[in-house]
Amino acid sequence: MQRYFVTPDNLLEDKAIVRGDDAHHLMRVMRAQPGDKVVVSDGVRRECLAEVVELYKENVLLKLLEERPMSGEPSVDVWIAQSLPKGDKLETVIQKGTEIGATAFLPFASARTVVQYDAKKEAKRVERWRKIAKEAAEQAHRSKVPDVRDAMRWSEMLRVAETARLALFCYEKEDGKRLRDALREAGPLAGGGPILVIVGPEGGFTEEEAAEAERRGCVPVGLGRRILRTETAGLVAAACILYEAGEMGG
Amino acid sequence: MQRYFVTPDNLLEDKAIVRGDDAHHLMRVMRAQPGDKVVVSDGVRRECLAEVVELYKENVLLKLLEERPMSGEPSVDVWIAQSLPKGDKLETVIQKGTEIGATAFLPFASARTVVQYDAKKEAKRVERWRKIAKEAAEQAHRSKVPDVRDAMRWSEMLRVAETARLALFCYEKEDGKRLRDALREAGPLAGGGPILVIVGPEGGFTEEEAAEAERRGCVPVGLGRRILRTETAGLVAAACILYEAGEMGG
Repeated sequence: MQRYFVTPDNLLEDKAIVRGDDAHHLMRVMRAQPGDKVVVSDGVRRECLAEVVELYKENVLLKLLEERPMSGEPSVDVWIAQSLPKGDKLETVIQKGTEIGATAFLPFASARTVVQYDAKKEAKRVERWRKIAKEAAEQAHRSKVPDVRDAMRWSEMLRVAETARLALFCYEKEDGKRLRDALREAGPLAGGGPILVIVGPEGGFTEEEAAEAERRGCVPVGLGRRILRTETAGLVAAACILYEAGEMGG
Repeated sequence: MQRYFVTPDNLLEDKAIVRGDDAHHLMRVMRAQPGDKVVVSDGVRRECLAEVVELYKENVLLKLLEERPMSGEPSVDVWIAQSLPKGDKLETVIQKGTEIGATAFLPFASARTVVQYDAKKEAKRVERWRKIAKEAAEQAHRSKVPDVRDAMRWSEMLRVAETARLALFCYEKEDGKRLRDALREAGPLAGGGPILVIVGPEGGFTEEEAAEAERRGCVPVGLGRRILRTETAGLVAAACILYEAGEMGG
């Protein structure tokens, strides 16, 4: 069933209002008629089965039929910290990472990040990333929209890593841990704090960054003998962590 | 270290010749000079450390320094059978699936496949897919190039499925197995026959297809509660199977 996220102030006691692009999608793409059923969620606390009541020019009025459990969220929070990749690769990471079940994305800049910053463009880019997360969450039947943070500096990312329950640093080193060992040493995965997966840019992390991350408590892990592209590594790690946690059919 | 696949007749006893796009890449992109080291493989039996000896206009002569074990291949063969998706999504599946470690891709048509066939375009498309697999294998440090089959019919795909050791049919059904249970019931993963992951098109499989697949021995499996796009499902399944088999850091 089609699902839409609305802001909490558009999800009232017994009705909801779908606006903007979602209203366009519901009316023009899905060709909704009064009586059609959809799922509506505020992405925070409530998810409801609802029925289309009235189609207006730019929004759609829904009647709430019943509250439903927010069942689309995984039992473990996986956050993907991704050093800004070239082109539209971060869009791939956010779209597919949302399908897989990541709950937050933290873009950051590191020594070998080649993407140029532009404060004006920055706000637009983050807005676009958040839209991609929302649309992917709707399509994947998530109950919440993953959080897309503003791009941050390496030092800020490390501060976030220190607050995570487990910060996994994707880095090929001789004595790096296997992902599974790092996860099992962390104890039961479900219900704890977030597990942060930290992925470098196309050129990888510098040795200095790897050493600093390890000093700050990050655990270097390997994802096997094949070399994954920057936009693939976080997705694979997230899928394997969720599989290990009993999600993804695991 | 940069790696190139050459056909077996270009990998001789003590030298190798890199031709075509790879020669262009080595000379123009990597700006190779005599003495530079690369890895060269025939993708079948041999992998060697080699040194650039001479740069010609359209090919590069290498001297073989030592034979190396073909270490980039996973211990279990994962094949991805993908109902032809729209646009360039199959390219994503082949590129990322190669990085993850799939050893074959089997594009097929099923009832809800919307891609139109065109015999003339078909050969070009398959050629392009094979080029993507080769380049991804080089970048990911694979020892072999995954096999990309010609697009096949549903009935042909089912015949391949019957020869697989385990054919997993990605389909959401009430009494479907969890991926992990299906894998563990199949016994030790390493070294056996191929594990085939069968993924439907954007609109999914029909009930008739699901019933037929099950009659022919395919095992319906679920990948969790979130809905994965067609181009994401096979990649996630491959990553989880390889993780379960002790690859991908598992």
